[in-house]
Amino acid sequence: LHFIKQIKTRKATRFSMQIIFYIPEVNHPQQWLDALRAQLPQATLRYWQPGDTEPADYAIVWAPPLEMLQTRNELKAIFLLGAGADSIMQIAAQLPAGVPVVRIEDAGMGAQMAEYVSYAVLRYFRCFDDYARLQAERQWEWHRPQERHKKDFSVAVLGMGVLGTHIIAQLLQLGFPVNGWSRSPKQMDGVQSFSGSDGLRACLSQSQVVVCILPLTPETTGILNRDTLVQLPRGAYVINVARGKHLIENDLLELVQSGHIAGATLDVFQQEPLPPEHAFWLEPRITVTPHIAARSLIQLSTAQLGAKIRGMAAGIAPSGVVDFTKGY
Amino acid sequence: LHFIKQIKTRKATRFSMQIIFYIPEVNHPQQWLDALRAQLPQATLRYWQPGDTEPADYAIVWAPPLEMLQTRNELKAIFLLGAGADSIMQIAAQLPAGVPVVRIEDAGMGAQMAEYVSYAVLRYFRCFDDYARLQAERQWEWHRPQERHKKDFSVAVLGMGVLGTHIIAQLLQLGFPVNGWSRSPKQMDGVQSFSGSDGLRACLSQSQVVVCILPLTPETTGILNRDTLVQLPRGAYVINVARGKHLIENDLLELVQSGHIAGATLDVFQQEPLPPEHAFWLEPRITVTPHIAARSLIQLSTAQLGAKIRGMAAGIAPSGVVDFTKGY
Repeated sequence: LHFIKQIKTRKATRFSMQIIFYIPEVNHPQQWLDALRAQLPQATLRYWQPGDTEPADYAIVWAPPLEMLQTRNELKAIFLLGAGADSIMQIAAQLPAGVPVVRIEDAGMGAQMAEYVSYAVLRYFRCFDDYARLQAERQWEWHRPQERHKKDFSVAVLGMGVLGTHIIAQLLQLGFPVNGWSRSPKQMDGVQSFSGSDGLRACLSQSQVVVCILPLTPETTGILNRDTLVQLPRGAYVINVARGKHLIENDLLELVQSGHIAGATLDVFQQEPLPPEHAFWLEPRITVTPHIAARSLIQLSTAQLGAKIRGMAAGIAPSGVVDFTKGY
Repeated sequence: LHFIKQIKTRKATRFSMQIIFYIPEVNHPQQWLDALRAQLPQATLRYWQPGDTEPADYAIVWAPPLEMLQTRNELKAIFLLGAGADSIMQIAAQLPAGVPVVRIEDAGMGAQMAEYVSYAVLRYFRCFDDYARLQAERQWEWHRPQERHKKDFSVAVLGMGVLGTHIIAQLLQLGFPVNGWSRSPKQMDGVQSFSGSDGLRACLSQSQVVVCILPLTPETTGILNRDTLVQLPRGAYVINVARGKHLIENDLLELVQSGHIAGATLDVFQQEPLPPEHAFWLEPRITVTPHIAARSLIQLSTAQLGAKIRGMAAGIAPSGVVDFTKGY
């Protein structure tokens, strides 16, 4: 059977564009393969398995083994099935030189991120956690003393890339003042912008909520820690929808328990799945979700990949190429 | 002391605009009086008490006793401190003929309603209730099988007045298709509009969520009942931010327990405060909040009242006059 498969593969290579594909089994490879085949009927797609060294034109991957890509100098591009380049960063130096690595640029993730963050900000702003607790106690009680006014309720968004921009636009539309922070200075209408490490302190000190949507790089690893979080005013709220390694989890937990931070909504963690013994699960002021803030939507992602691959075949360079010197 | 007060009041009537004010003690009258005095320094405001029959130019009230207003033909207008006219409807026939009753028209309530409804719709759309339950069980688990697409997730908004329009605009901005229903036909950009009782059935049958923001009138009392709620597709969600009497509570409870309705977020109830023994408190699929979806914000409401009263003094008819034949 294995022998027959190989012959079929060899025959196909002579006639059409070859694409190797890999995502971990847990992420449902078959659904992705079906959708990619519908987008690229002219291509021959195969699910890569150890030992497969047949040539290919393109690779489409998430969390790939190094062995799959290390010696493939023939590739025209490697496409990542997600917005973050961190999943491939640790093997970046060993990838074939000169092969561009291309990220998914939005594919519905921006809208989903904006939904998630809007939900979490509204939940905190309107005290819905308090009302949930009161409901469990069958208490009919108002929170008028803590009436909050939007104009005094600024949200800091760390990261002003494609996803950060979606989040900012939605928060502005909901009427929240927004402070934006990015690696290099950026201007956006209606946003008070900050950059650099001094800028980060100033940004946080003026914000009631901080949202992290930064790329994970050596500079941003652990950026949410005791030193930065204490810059937030007392009673501020933390939302992390980027990567678990942005946040020093024990620092946050201590600041929540001391009352400096009112609470947090976290979608990403140092270790995923979050271990059952982790203190976040049962801390009532911390909302845990299982890395669902933005999923790569199969239809939108594969449509984007199809367009980029057809473009490359026609000589058009794709957008979203990872700059490994910046890390995203 | 009472005698001295009366003399002071009499003296003042000779020189300035007289306003009588009443809201129940539970709603913090002093805060409102202070804010109104700041808005209308030229006026003399007094908190009405039983027995006070001194003339007045205007009355500003919420849930007033009939005795306060019944014989006051001298009033130029009665201002309600809220958006709903239902609080005064039962005494409407006994109010002095020809005195206009004027509602608060928005005063920040539209924005608050839009926040509340956006929060509740996002909560259901993104399965945040399920994730809260999973967190309590320390379960890291995805809901990919029930992946929902916004284009197939329409929200019916019953009521297309000032507040309904705010809600609709926010939902459209979040990317949800909106079906609007109103008493008389209305057109709004981007909204599929319905009216009349046949229109209500058609509207509900095409919507995954129904939001009630109708005025309470004889025609809309009990409008959310078994017959109308079963028009919604199985697994739909109910949000009521209007009045408790719009909803037949037992009908909803039975449809939730039978699984036809997935759940509800309710801010208003037949009896408020919701009695401690009410089944809604402990039903995990029903979220209860204590009539906080939109509060009359003191600053914005009193600024609007100040502007309307100064306008009337200058001969400009106020907007927001209640039409008792329509009931709002």
